[in-house]
Amino acid sequence: MSVRTGEAYLAGIDAMDNKVLSGKTIIKKPLSKHAAFRGVMRTQAELYDLQHDAAYMDVLTYTDRDSGERYGLSFLKPETREDLTRRSGMIKCWAEQTHGMIGRSPDYMNTVLMALAASADLLEGKENCFPDHLRSYYEYVKKHDLTMTHTFIDPQVNRGDFYFEQKDEPIAAKIVERNAEGIIIHGAKLLATQGGITDELVVMSAAGFEQDRGFGFAIPSNADGLTFVARESFAGGKGKADYPLSARYEEMDTIVLFDKVLIPWERIFYYDNVAVANSFKNESSFAAFGLHQVLIRRVAKLDFTIGIVQSLIEEINIAEYQHVRKKAAKLVILSEVLQSLLQQAEAGAAPDRLGTFCPDLKPLQVASNIFARKYTEIAPMIQQLGASGMMSIPPVQAFKSEKGVELNHYLQGATKQGEDRVKLFRLAWDFAMSSFGTRESLYEYFFFGDPVRLISQFYGSIDFKPYKEKVDNLLS
Amino acid sequence: MSVRTGEAYLAGIDAMDNKVLSGKTIIKKPLSKHAAFRGVMRTQAELYDLQHDAAYMDVLTYTDRDSGERYGLSFLKPETREDLTRRSGMIKCWAEQTHGMIGRSPDYMNTVLMALAASADLLEGKENCFPDHLRSYYEYVKKHDLTMTHTFIDPQVNRGDFYFEQKDEPIAAKIVERNAEGIIIHGAKLLATQGGITDELVVMSAAGFEQDRGFGFAIPSNADGLTFVARESFAGGKGKADYPLSARYEEMDTIVLFDKVLIPWERIFYYDNVAVANSFKNESSFAAFGLHQVLIRRVAKLDFTIGIVQSLIEEINIAEYQHVRKKAAKLVILSEVLQSLLQQAEAGAAPDRLGTFCPDLKPLQVASNIFARKYTEIAPMIQQLGASGMMSIPPVQAFKSEKGVELNHYLQGATKQGEDRVKLFRLAWDFAMSSFGTRESLYEYFFFGDPVRLISQFYGSIDFKPYKEKVDNLLS
Amino acid sequence: MSVRTGEAYLAGIDAMDNKVLSGKTIIKKPLSKHAAFRGVMRTQAELYDLQHDAAYMDVLTYTDRDSGERYGLSFLKPETREDLTRRSGMIKCWAEQTHGMIGRSPDYMNTVLMALAASADLLEGKENCFPDHLRSYYEYVKKHDLTMTHTFIDPQVNRGDFYFEQKDEPIAAKIVERNAEGIIIHGAKLLATQGGITDELVVMSAAGFEQDRGFGFAIPSNADGLTFVARESFAGGKGKADYPLSARYEEMDTIVLFDKVLIPWERIFYYDNVAVANSFKNESSFAAFGLHQVLIRRVAKLDFTIGIVQSLIEEINIAEYQHVRKKAAKLVILSEVLQSLLQQAEAGAAPDRLGTFCPDLKPLQVASNIFARKYTEIAPMIQQLGASGMMSIPPVQAFKSEKGVELNHYLQGATKQGEDRVKLFRLAWDFAMSSFGTRESLYEYFFFGDPVRLISQFYGSIDFKPYKEKVDNLLS
Amino acid sequence: MSVRTGEAYLAGIDAMDNKVLSGKTIIKKPLSKHAAFRGVMRTQAELYDLQHDAAYMDVLTYTDRDSGERYGLSFLKPETREDLTRRSGMIKCWAEQTHGMIGRSPDYMNTVLMALAASADLLEGKENCFPDHLRSYYEYVKKHDLTMTHTFIDPQVNRGDFYFEQKDEPIAAKIVERNAEGIIIHGAKLLATQGGITDELVVMSAAGFEQDRGFGFAIPSNADGLTFVARESFAGGKGKADYPLSARYEEMDTIVLFDKVLIPWERIFYYDNVAVANSFKNESSFAAFGLHQVLIRRVAKLDFTIGIVQSLIEEINIAEYQHVRKKAAKLVILSEVLQSLLQQAEAGAAPDRLGTFCPDLKPLQVASNIFARKYTEIAPMIQQLGASGMMSIPPVQAFKSEKGVELNHYLQGATKQGEDRVKLFRLAWDFAMSSFGTRESLYEYFFFGDPVRLISQFYGSIDFKPYKEKVDNLLS
Repeated sequence: MSVRTGEAYLAGIDAMDNKVLSGKTIIKKPLSKHAAFRGVMRTQAELYDLQHDAAYMDVLTYTDRDSGERYGLSFLKPETREDLTRRSGMIKCWAEQTHGMIGRSPDYMNTVLMALAASADLLEGKENCFPDHLRSYYEYVKKHDLTMTHTFIDPQVNRGDFYFEQKDEPIAAKIVERNAEGIIIHGAKLLATQGGITDELVVMSAAGFEQDRGFGFAIPSNADGLTFVARESFAGGKGKADYPLSARYEEMDTIVLFDKVLIPWERIFYYDNVAVANSFKNESSFAAFGLHQVLIRRVAKLDFTIGIVQSLIEEINIAEYQHVRKKAAKLVILSEVLQSLLQQAEAGAAPDRLGTFCPDLKPLQVASNIFARKYTEIAPMIQQLGASGMMSIPPVQAFKSEKGVELNHYLQGATKQGEDRVKLFRLAWDFAMSSFGTRESLYEYFFFGDPVRLISQFYGSIDFKPYKEKVDNLLS
Repeated sequence: MSVRTGEAYLAGIDAMDNKVLSGKTIIKKPLSKHAAFRGVMRTQAELYDLQHDAAYMDVLTYTDRDSGERYGLSFLKPETREDLTRRSGMIKCWAEQTHGMIGRSPDYMNTVLMALAASADLLEGKENCFPDHLRSYYEYVKKHDLTMTHTFIDPQVNRGDFYFEQKDEPIAAKIVERNAEGIIIHGAKLLATQGGITDELVVMSAAGFEQDRGFGFAIPSNADGLTFVARESFAGGKGKADYPLSARYEEMDTIVLFDKVLIPWERIFYYDNVAVANSFKNESSFAAFGLHQVLIRRVAKLDFTIGIVQSLIEEINIAEYQHVRKKAAKLVILSEVLQSLLQQAEAGAAPDRLGTFCPDLKPLQVASNIFARKYTEIAPMIQQLGASGMMSIPPVQAFKSEKGVELNHYLQGATKQGEDRVKLFRLAWDFAMSSFGTRESLYEYFFFGDPVRLISQFYGSIDFKPYKEKVDNLLS
Repeated sequence: MSVRTGEAYLAGIDAMDNKVLSGKTIIKKPLSKHAAFRGVMRTQAELYDLQHDAAYMDVLTYTDRDSGERYGLSFLKPETREDLTRRSGMIKCWAEQTHGMIGRSPDYMNTVLMALAASADLLEGKENCFPDHLRSYYEYVKKHDLTMTHTFIDPQVNRGDFYFEQKDEPIAAKIVERNAEGIIIHGAKLLATQGGITDELVVMSAAGFEQDRGFGFAIPSNADGLTFVARESFAGGKGKADYPLSARYEEMDTIVLFDKVLIPWERIFYYDNVAVANSFKNESSFAAFGLHQVLIRRVAKLDFTIGIVQSLIEEINIAEYQHVRKKAAKLVILSEVLQSLLQQAEAGAAPDRLGTFCPDLKPLQVASNIFARKYTEIAPMIQQLGASGMMSIPPVQAFKSEKGVELNHYLQGATKQGEDRVKLFRLAWDFAMSSFGTRESLYEYFFFGDPVRLISQFYGSIDFKPYKEKVDNLLS
Repeated sequence: MSVRTGEAYLAGIDAMDNKVLSGKTIIKKPLSKHAAFRGVMRTQAELYDLQHDAAYMDVLTYTDRDSGERYGLSFLKPETREDLTRRSGMIKCWAEQTHGMIGRSPDYMNTVLMALAASADLLEGKENCFPDHLRSYYEYVKKHDLTMTHTFIDPQVNRGDFYFEQKDEPIAAKIVERNAEGIIIHGAKLLATQGGITDELVVMSAAGFEQDRGFGFAIPSNADGLTFVARESFAGGKGKADYPLSARYEEMDTIVLFDKVLIPWERIFYYDNVAVANSFKNESSFAAFGLHQVLIRRVAKLDFTIGIVQSLIEEINIAEYQHVRKKAAKLVILSEVLQSLLQQAEAGAAPDRLGTFCPDLKPLQVASNIFARKYTEIAPMIQQLGASGMMSIPPVQAFKSEKGVELNHYLQGATKQGEDRVKLFRLAWDFAMSSFGTRESLYEYFFFGDPVRLISQFYGSIDFKPYKEKVDNLLS
């Protein structure tokens, strides 16, 4: 069967024995048992299990028209409006399960791969391009319901506009050899979220102008020579009561080191082709489907945030203050805006030139721009609403201590006893103030690239003619 | 025929001889010839004429199912989705004709009256309420395609929260007598836009708690004892070349003085009923249909603004600057957001309890909140982009002077000769810097009430339960 | 006597018969009688007269140590802290007289010329430079207490970063001939405020790289071939009651046309020297003294603004609202900040390398940056506070009409009768919404250049070493 | 000797055996050895030691005029401008030592106590007030150079405007008994920073209207019945290399539980006096001296922040981008503004009615308002500048691993090798993204109370008469 269970996912990753450097040492014990990974892997496993839950199966999987085989719905290449609607339902279901807190829930990468494979025709007839490799990789992943991550960007040595790496020893990963078996990659790539706890790694180069860095391929996470370097974990060690979010959703970010890694030919989508490397992603339906998934997830996250904010407001009884009302109302307004843009993108969906039924890109770009900017305002807002309550958060064990009864009394809120009130405030803290929470802000801000660059590109993509004609009409 | 021509409108208003105080004197000559009014009346006349233009007739008028009579489409009470769609098309057509610059284009008040009349059932059986008067007033206005304005708010004596007028001589208009013929109104009301150049005046009291001020009625603008006090005109006197906007769209705002004005019974919708006065408008479909018309108009206005901004950018060649690109892009983003909310409101439309096919209110409220706040940022943006060009705007006659040839050369832009470039900058100035332009900003900001109060009310209208449940689920 | 009276100033300008194009025609009648200029010229005359008022004479003038002659204090080149303090007092006195609303009060240009002349040594020994011409021009202007304006910037044809004018017929004014009598200038310059109503015009080229445009000189406003092209006047025609600001303070902006104007050698400070043209102003004490004058004026203006805002608040009784309090408080905070920066600049004053006792530049740049950005927020703030009151402003003559008594009653505020309340609101309107008011916003925003460029240059001028050392110390 | 050494401070606290609840248990081992406290205690000890360092002794201590005894300078009650200047120097010295990151460096509470004691006259002759107790407490603390913290605010049960606690069992600490020995306090108080690691605890009630809660007193931290409940520690466990800030500066916040704690009479400043409880702090010089200390500390912190920001900018070479330059420049502008306000406050210092030489309060309030708001923008700014670099931060041990050499190469910046670059980014992360960093933001925002309330109060304190007179003059 092509639809994985949580158990199979956990066992699969543990069996691969991917090389993850944590601090000074390579992690020895199974990753699913390691404090840095077990929370998020458990959460992912629950998502996989949901595919087998009778209540969700039809929402999360589909039966292939030809083979009769059942696959995860995130792999479905939509050809009709109904297909697209089913995709939306699947994304929403998984996103609400995790309150939109998992950036790399399986549907994200599955969607990305589906979109790239659906656009494989764009590679036809181009130098050093292998559209068939991409299509069969998609079939392979779909058939085994594998989990992937990707790495696109280069190490941040120098972000000047005209920087060109001139080093003997490469920094940004590049092709150092081509031979009968494939290409050899050496160097580093940033910043693979969930790196090391996925089956597969998809690698595409950032925009550039060097032939050695014009490639796209995929390899198993346990490929020879591959190391994932972890930052410290932001998963709260003491568990879900104290760290309701990070204990479940901390995904880890890793730097990927390639030490002369062989990429076999059948796993290469294109290489030594800068033009394709610079254009394929943009010309494919990657952005449309990627942003579609992201927007649905973000709406789920935002609605969860509204719940946190309003719960705080009620618990300390501050709804009478005009600025408080305004803060909460603006979050609801943001949610309405995003949902409208989502509906606009779906209402405007149409088959692209390759026949994929694609959501309309523009409203999705608008939504992404708005969310990236507004999301950064949420954490400060919660801090300002929560005030001293954000620091009056002894760990929940304190309520089991010799002072537990008193604390339960002294820390009560308008509706909750102390322990439950502290749990709510710890949730707000984990969202808005913990190392996990701030990483979320950063992640959402940069999810689809630097907003400063993106809005400039967006300007460049607008056809201003119809707007200017209105002015010309009036003036003439 | 029930659909008016521009000529009939102009002649009608002139014949009424409404009493308008301008400076120290009551205006004597026909209003349509007066410098303060001729521009906007000409523009309104063009809108009426469009109803008779074969190319627009089916967009702007409809044939009554029962009588076979043709009426203006803004009077159509929608009962189906198709009706609503037709209404949208009509509003858009008139709005684009005037670039959204006319707040009181006929469709606005026609829409308001339609919505109130469609909600007349709410008045049934209530004390001192006459739903039939409202319905027949609607039929009367529709049949003669009359033009109306309204006045709702009281003079701004004291805006404190608990202010209660205690004067012997009334300030805010109130009922001072009830007799066999009707009620007698004395005092003042603010701020009737286009006051004096409409056939009719609709008067409803602001929220309050005084029986004498709980009323709703309509009277002809030339009713005995009625005076409209005009502010100075912001219409640029030298014509469309120098004042492309104000010469066409300056609508005038007036204070309305009631000097013991008799309101005959058949024109009274309700009186001496504070509860109804405070609730009828909110419970009716007034807000839904009003905000629907306004949003369509505002989208037209915004798109015109984008045209101005981008024309400026190109004319002085500043598109290379990142902050310039961002400014223009954010206007496009705003337009996309408003259009999505409009589509959301229409997609969510449904029959209300009285059978009127009503747009969904929430997205319209969201759009109104966003537009009111963002619109105030546009004028400063245009000033910052236009820079010294905003003051290098000799009147166009200067190009006919002895220095005309030189000026045409010296004031050239990237694509235009001096005279055309100055016309563009004068347009930008009239939009962003003239007394007319700033009045537009004020008008849009307060169009549906003080945004500070509105967002607080909006907060109060939200059902937070589903949001909070997400949090409760996680915590338990 | 070297200190002018208002009468002498008015007569002097009228006698010069400067060529000012207004609309299609050159102004014929004396400028001091022309509607566009009489208000501001009357205001300027009052400033001059104040120099002869016994109560102000010692604040506004000084006695030369050597000659015993009395001069305007704005000409004083400070050599001691006491001199600088006297300068401050003089600027403040004139600024408070005009509520900071006159950008080109005589002290501004006098200060500029003093600073340039005090820096004349910088021109010594450089090619085509005549420091003595600059020094004697300063003496000449001081001795006759002449009034000046300046023009520095070029027409806004193309603001791209690498624009280079390539036209046969010049646009930006340039040297087209050098001969025995002097140089011949042809082309246009922007944007001489008060152009045409000053005795003298100081011209310096903008930063560039063309020899023909590397110059600095001064000529009388009635030089042969010189034309000032006026925009329309923003002076409210009906006088001070209705237009309390523009009737007094509208200064006019003009485009300056040079039609082969001869600049005699003795009036040339430098020419054909791009390096000097690009550096002299920046290396001189121009910015320090100019920004010092401007800051004192702006503090006076801001305090006047606070008066307007608080008067509005009290008149409609809205001080109970938290957002209203915040708005007003932020203006007071801004005023405190500017005053502190002024004090900082004066406390840090010291002799520059040429012996002039110069205020510290950095706090003045900081103040200028802050004011330019914050000032643009004031007009929208006043609009939002004033609300409908900003449009309920019949001209004051209305109070003399047949409805005058009623209006005086109906438009009353919390403390004032209608007529006085309307006068207050007309003041607020003239400040925040009239064409005059918006021009003020633009003027202040760009007073010392485009803030976007200025803050970037400011960054470039900072020595970050001491800041970074703190980090290095911690890390090592 | 009255000036403590670091060693004496550490030994003293350890010997007291204060009762601190951490999680489920009361901490057993000496606090100075406990992971949650050893960092900040070490840092505090270094500050004390500095008092004995010959290079700093005269900056940090003074010799009493009468007794010839040497005391810490933060205890000096200033009577002259010179005294105040010395105080500034002392505060600055300690603040720069700790980069302004220690909110409760000893000078803060010493300053607070000095200001309260200097204002003890205000308690003279009032009911239940003991000014002598306050004065002798000050002498006692000064003589032994003790360290204190304070707790002022009540548990956040309900922040509504008219909340009144009505519980049988008190929540907010109150007097439950008065007897021969003193008063008995029962209940809880928030949020004692450094609670448990100071010798003394100063307690004053928040504004209220209950006699039982109108008190001010001080007790030793090891008083019977006192428990400090700690939140989890934000001190990075792995040391200064990975957590350069939190390992040094994490101060801990504690909830203080009073279990029928006896306050002996000689330690009570006032009790059962609501009027005094509500007014004493405001009428004393508490705010002036407190805000003075805080502002000097904040300037030190801000300048350190500028160092971080500019180091980041240079390391990834992004100074060419206009928005980056603007971000950094605005921090420098903020620093200049704060320094000017500080200078203004000191220049305007004068003896208060009790003879204490007090800085001017208004500029300090302005500075506090500005800093509280602007500081919240810094963390997002650093996140946006650092981008992916903020997450590419393996712990420094990774550079000692088998992949250390490669990482050192791959993570290099424009000027640093990988390990040093990561140290810089970890510093930025600890400042802007760690749980420690976000707590700092919250702390600064609320340091002197809720800014929303404070700005409203500030408005109420302004004398608007001189501002309004300017308007009246113009209008009349």
